[in-house]
Amino acid sequence: MDAIHTEFSLIEWIRRQARGSTCVDTGIGDDAAVLRLPEGAETLVTVDMLLEGTHFQMPPATAGEVGRKLLAVNLSDIAAMAGRPLAAFVSVGLSRDSDREFAEELHTGILDLARRYDVALAGGDTNVWDGPLSVSLTLVGETTGRGAVTRNGAQVGDWVMVTGSFGGSLRGGHLAFEPRVAEAMALNEHFQLHSMIDVSDGLAADLHHVLDESRVGAVIRAGDVPISEAAQQCVDERSALQHALGDGEDFELLFTLSPAEGARLLTAPPFTTPVARIGEIVAERTCLLRSVDGVLVALPRLGWEHGA
Amino acid sequence: MDAIHTEFSLIEWIRRQARGSTCVDTGIGDDAAVLRLPEGAETLVTVDMLLEGTHFQMPPATAGEVGRKLLAVNLSDIAAMAGRPLAAFVSVGLSRDSDREFAEELHTGILDLARRYDVALAGGDTNVWDGPLSVSLTLVGETTGRGAVTRNGAQVGDWVMVTGSFGGSLRGGHLAFEPRVAEAMALNEHFQLHSMIDVSDGLAADLHHVLDESRVGAVIRAGDVPISEAAQQCVDERSALQHALGDGEDFELLFTLSPAEGARLLTAPPFTTPVARIGEIVAERTCLLRSVDGVLVALPRLGWEHGA
Repeated sequence: MDAIHTEFSLIEWIRRQARGSTCVDTGIGDDAAVLRLPEGAETLVTVDMLLEGTHFQMPPATAGEVGRKLLAVNLSDIAAMAGRPLAAFVSVGLSRDSDREFAEELHTGILDLARRYDVALAGGDTNVWDGPLSVSLTLVGETTGRGAVTRNGAQVGDWVMVTGSFGGSLRGGHLAFEPRVAEAMALNEHFQLHSMIDVSDGLAADLHHVLDESRVGAVIRAGDVPISEAAQQCVDERSALQHALGDGEDFELLFTLSPAEGARLLTAPPFTTPVARIGEIVAERTCLLRSVDGVLVALPRLGWEHGA
Repeated sequence: MDAIHTEFSLIEWIRRQARGSTCVDTGIGDDAAVLRLPEGAETLVTVDMLLEGTHFQMPPATAGEVGRKLLAVNLSDIAAMAGRPLAAFVSVGLSRDSDREFAEELHTGILDLARRYDVALAGGDTNVWDGPLSVSLTLVGETTGRGAVTRNGAQVGDWVMVTGSFGGSLRGGHLAFEPRVAEAMALNEHFQLHSMIDVSDGLAADLHHVLDESRVGAVIRAGDVPISEAAQQCVDERSALQHALGDGEDFELLFTLSPAEGARLLTAPPFTTPVARIGEIVAERTCLLRSVDGVLVALPRLGWEHGA
């Protein structure tokens, strides 16, 4: 929580911008934040780091977009547990040639999104160094509804469902996506979810994470995978479907639930964000893709590697 | 919490090394950790980032020493609130030329110290990039005894006290110090502390933080400042006392309490770590140093700048 002295006025600026919150007894300005977390719920903690040249390029990304994305990816992780986000802690390694305006824009990107999600910026560590921009954010939240939804609860026979559409996030979606916090909480309130994950590595890769942790397999129907407009525009040596399955950084929800609950969700979704059934969980521990003409092929763990 | 795929086996290795803890329901391997924090206490959260070239040089620092320091500086922040540390979350940006052995040594440095302090490594984000080593750790803890001890409670008439001795940490102490977790909890259990901070920026700078937040001043007696062996060996254009007041990274505790409580502490300290009374809190908002011959001079906010 200690700040470099040459940037002391920046820390004071951040401290003034950071709004209070009922859960934050002591925020920025002490050795640690003191949180009064709601009792009865469990506490969720996630951390994500964004590194210049790896997770974003500047340009095209602006400082504000990097700050927004830094919080948004962590919001997406809390959403994946069906949690309610509460307080953020950010560590920043600013490259030595960054000016004060850059630092303020970075934090404004975080703070604007934080305000919309009722998240307090409750602490941080700001530094200047000779490396490129390096930022890390830790987000604390609480469980809601029926508790945390983990990756390891998928059951044989479950429907595999997703929100939104997939692919082509490098065309801009990865900087501007809306984390599915509200959708996840609504799903967990109204339906008995068995497992959930947010799609950051890629639809195929993150499905594999669920299957690995749940020790089951899946059959996905190619014709039912929602393909984004951006993915359609990306078609190159890879098809739009391959982009949808492999690109990553969609930050949509992938979840499994019983067929009865899935059918109920399709009949009466509690929000307007599209939901789709894309396949089923099976006992055999393989991940298969059924093409539109009925052919079954292995769906590999593509991972999130641009152009791979 | 997402890991790069090329390092997937490293994440699995870390996951195997990370011991469980009664407070961690879900640790590494999901989108967020799920913690069941003790009820009745408040939650403490601190984050510190260490950047190669700024906070450490390699060599002389080894990967294991950097990992140890990363956790130790955060333990020191939790100690400064008189808290009990519970769970750590680490984000790592490994330089592309780091090998697997380096990454394992870094985490072993964290894990060995975590084990000694009963801290669970409950989550993280591991990445490879083209920059130097960048690491950030978030430590979650709980309040103990009479609750969190903040920086803003110093009262006029309080004794200013410290643990240990000061100066010259660059000679090695900054990589090997023992965070004062046990001492802080014992102090908060047995004595009514008014304010506390850990000395990371420097004895003078951190005293100034307490004075600023508490809106008071202080008079420090030069002859009573405990000067470390290392500071004696550092004497150059600056005296040993100047090193003790300005060097920083001592990670000792500085705290204030009533004269009656201070006298009781000196009479019956609850631990063997040395404690010393170095001055008093005064109403006038200046920070003064009384030399051995009785002359009063302003004690500036030296900050933590080597050789400054």
